[in-house]
Amino acid sequence: MVKGTYMMMTDSAEATYHPLDVEEAATYAATCPPLGAVAAAGATLRAREVGDGNLNLVFIVSGDEGSSAVIKQALPYVRLVGESWPLTIQRNRFERQAFAVYATMVPDLVPRVYHEDDERALFVMEDLSRLRLVRQGLIARQPFPRLAGDIGRFCAETLIRTSDFYLGSAEKKRLVAQFINPELCKITEDLVLTDPFYDATSNSYPPELQPAVDALWDDSRAQTNIAGLRHAFMTRAEALLHGDLHTGSIMGSPEETKVMDAEFAFFGPIGFDVGMFIANLFLSAVAHMARNTPESRAYAETMWDAASETWDVFEMQAQSLLDAAPVWRLPDEACDELIQQVLRDAVGFAGAEVIRRTIGLAQVADLNTIADAGALLRAKAAAVALGRELIAEHRDVGSFVQATDLARRVCIEELA
Amino acid sequence: MVKGTYMMMTDSAEATYHPLDVEEAATYAATCPPLGAVAAAGATLRAREVGDGNLNLVFIVSGDEGSSAVIKQALPYVRLVGESWPLTIQRNRFERQAFAVYATMVPDLVPRVYHEDDERALFVMEDLSRLRLVRQGLIARQPFPRLAGDIGRFCAETLIRTSDFYLGSAEKKRLVAQFINPELCKITEDLVLTDPFYDATSNSYPPELQPAVDALWDDSRAQTNIAGLRHAFMTRAEALLHGDLHTGSIMGSPEETKVMDAEFAFFGPIGFDVGMFIANLFLSAVAHMARNTPESRAYAETMWDAASETWDVFEMQAQSLLDAAPVWRLPDEACDELIQQVLRDAVGFAGAEVIRRTIGLAQVADLNTIADAGALLRAKAAAVALGRELIAEHRDVGSFVQATDLARRVCIEELA
Repeated sequence: MVKGTYMMMTDSAEATYHPLDVEEAATYAATCPPLGAVAAAGATLRAREVGDGNLNLVFIVSGDEGSSAVIKQALPYVRLVGESWPLTIQRNRFERQAFAVYATMVPDLVPRVYHEDDERALFVMEDLSRLRLVRQGLIARQPFPRLAGDIGRFCAETLIRTSDFYLGSAEKKRLVAQFINPELCKITEDLVLTDPFYDATSNSYPPELQPAVDALWDDSRAQTNIAGLRHAFMTRAEALLHGDLHTGSIMGSPEETKVMDAEFAFFGPIGFDVGMFIANLFLSAVAHMARNTPESRAYAETMWDAASETWDVFEMQAQSLLDAAPVWRLPDEACDELIQQVLRDAVGFAGAEVIRRTIGLAQVADLNTIADAGALLRAKAAAVALGRELIAEHRDVGSFVQATDLARRVCIEELA
Repeated sequence: MVKGTYMMMTDSAEATYHPLDVEEAATYAATCPPLGAVAAAGATLRAREVGDGNLNLVFIVSGDEGSSAVIKQALPYVRLVGESWPLTIQRNRFERQAFAVYATMVPDLVPRVYHEDDERALFVMEDLSRLRLVRQGLIARQPFPRLAGDIGRFCAETLIRTSDFYLGSAEKKRLVAQFINPELCKITEDLVLTDPFYDATSNSYPPELQPAVDALWDDSRAQTNIAGLRHAFMTRAEALLHGDLHTGSIMGSPEETKVMDAEFAFFGPIGFDVGMFIANLFLSAVAHMARNTPESRAYAETMWDAASETWDVFEMQAQSLLDAAPVWRLPDEACDELIQQVLRDAVGFAGAEVIRRTIGLAQVADLNTIADAGALLRAKAAAVALGRELIAEHRDVGSFVQATDLARRVCIEELA
C-alpha cells in the first residue's frame, strides 16, 4: 500500500499547532470575527464538534440570539484511517485560498470566510447548519431544484475564470505555483485513479462482486483510458479545480447551494470537477433504481435529469464566458473543441469516481445504505459496469445526451 | 505590441547585480573554479565577450597553457531589442538548474557547470570553443554525424526521466514549482505561438511574401490548431523542457554535441523540444534546397534524413525508457498512444517554429544568409507553406515518415 508515502511536510506552523477541543474552540472563536463582538458584549460561546468527514475537525460555535460560526481545523492525519496515515495540515491553507478565489466569482455558492489562522491550520467560516449535506438529502429523496444549475454555474465560473483565457500568463502561473498541492493530489492519483483498477489492498467489496470487478480489470480499453485520465490529472494545469466536488462536499436546500471542502484545490483538467459531481448524481440514480420502489424509481429519473442539467448549464455558461474572454478569445472551432475535450474528460473522470465510490477505500452512503442485500449487490454491480463503460467509451462521446443515454442503458440492463 | 508586459521581477539579487565588463569577468574568474587555482599559481587571466545571442553576456576567460572557462551572465533586458524590453535576470538560475538536472541524465551532452552565483546572475561553465555553433555549421554544410542521434537521445532521456513515469508524484510537483518560469514562457507564447499567426507588429517579412502569409492567416484549420498548440504549451506540464532547443542552442563537431542555453526551461508538453529541433533541420533543408546547387541539394537531403533519425532515436529510446519506468509503467497501448501524442505535438510545434523563424521577430541565418534575392524569397514562401501544412495536418499524422514526406513534398512543390 501507498499510505506510508503520504509524508507530512515540516513547517514552522506545526510547532504551535495542536488540535482544538470544544472548550478551546469556544475560547478561540471569542477572539475573532464574527463572534468576537458577541463575546465582548457578554455572551457565552459554546462549541460542539460535528465533523463527519475524513480529514478535519469541524466546530459549530454558538453565541446568544442565534449567532454562530464554524471553525474548520485540519487534523495531521486522515481521520477515516487514523494517525497511521499522516497528512499535511497545510491543506487548510489551500482550502481557504480556494474560497478566496471563489468569493470573487461565485460568492453566493461558497461559505463566507471570516478569519484565517495558518499557524493553527484553521479558518472561521459561515455556519451552514440551515442547510443539509446534499448526499444525505439525495438519499432521503429530498428535492434540490437549484442544485444542478448552481453546480453547473459553479464549475463554469470557477474553472473558466481561472484558465488561461481569463488570467494573464504570469498571474496564471503564480496561482499554479500557489496551488501546487502534492499530498492531496496523491490521494486522488492513488485512491481514485489507480487502486480501484487493480487488486489493491485499499479496495473493499463483497466477494459476489468479483465478476463485475474482474470485467473491469480485464477491460483493456478501460485500462488504457484510465492511464490517460491519470496522466491528464497529473499534467494538465488548465484551471483551478475544487478537486473533491462530490455531493458530500455540497450543502443545500431548495433555495440555496454551498460548495465546501476545497482542500484538494489545484490546477488540473477542467473536466474533472464536472465529472466528479455528475458521477455522484449517477451513483444516486443507480442506488435509487436498485431500491426499486415507485418513489425511488421516480427520484432516480430526477438524478439523470439533474446530471444533464448540470452539463447543459456548465456548457452554456462556459461557452458564454469563453466568448467574452478578456485575455484570450479562442477561434470558434477551437472553442468548440475545448468544450468537447472537457466533455470527454468529464465522462471519463465520472467513470473513475463511480468505480472508486463502489469498490475503493472511500465509498458512498448512497449505495451502502441500501438495506436489502440483494438490491445492494445489484446496485454495486451496476455501478461497476456503469463506471467501466464510461471510462471505456469516454473518448468517443460526442454529446452529454449520448453519455447519459449510455449510462441509463447500462443501469437498466444491469438492474433488469 | 506585448513587449511592455515583460515586467522585470523585483528581487534582492538585483540590488548587488551589475553587468560585468571584461576586466571584471577576468577578476571574477580568478576567485572560483576552474580557473581560481590557475590564477593562484600566478597565471594572468584574460577575458573576451563573445555573446551573440539575444539575452546574455558570454565571456571566455583564458589562463595560461590553454586553461579556460566561460562566464555566462544574464542581462536585465533582451539584447536583440535593447533596454526597452526588460527581462528578469532570474532566468540564469533556471538555466543552471536545468543543467544540474541534465548532468544526472546526459552528462556527455551538456557543458559542465563549475560555479554558480545567483546574486550576480551568472554561472561559470565549460568552455566549448572547440565546437561550432550547429546552426553556423549547417549553413556551411558541415557534417554532424552525431547530431541527430545525440539530440534524439537528449530529448528522450531528459523528457522521459522528468515525467510522471520516472519521478514520484511529490518530487515531480516540487520540480514543476521550481521551474515555473513565466517571463521566458511568455516570450514563446507570444513570439512563437501567437504573433506570427496574425498581423502583429513584431512580424517581419518582405512584401512579396504577403500571399503566403495571407494563406497562413486565412487557413482556419491552422488557426484552430495553433490555438490548441498554444493551450498545450501553457497547460500541459508533462516533462522538464529545454524550451529553446534550436540549432543555435547547440554546439557540435563530428565527434561531440553539447546542448546550451536552457534558460527557457519549464514543465511543458514532451513534443515541444523534439518539434523545435526538427523544425530547425527542416529550415536548413528548405534553405539548402532553395540555394539549389548540387552540393546544397545533397546537403538538404541529409537534413531530412537527420530529422527522421532524430525522431527514430527519440522514439526508440523513449519507448525503452517507458518500458523500464520505475514509478509508473504504462499499459502497452497507453504507451503507444502517449508516443503518438508526442509525435503529433512535435509536428505541430515544428510548424509553429518554422513559421516564426521565417516571418517572426527572431529569424534564422539559415534563410537570411541566402544571397540570391529570388532564392531567398522562394525559400521563405516555401517555409511558410511548410509550416502551415505541418500545423494544419499535425493532428492527423500517424508516423514521422508521413510528416517528413509531407514536408518534403510541400518544399519540392514550392521550390519547383
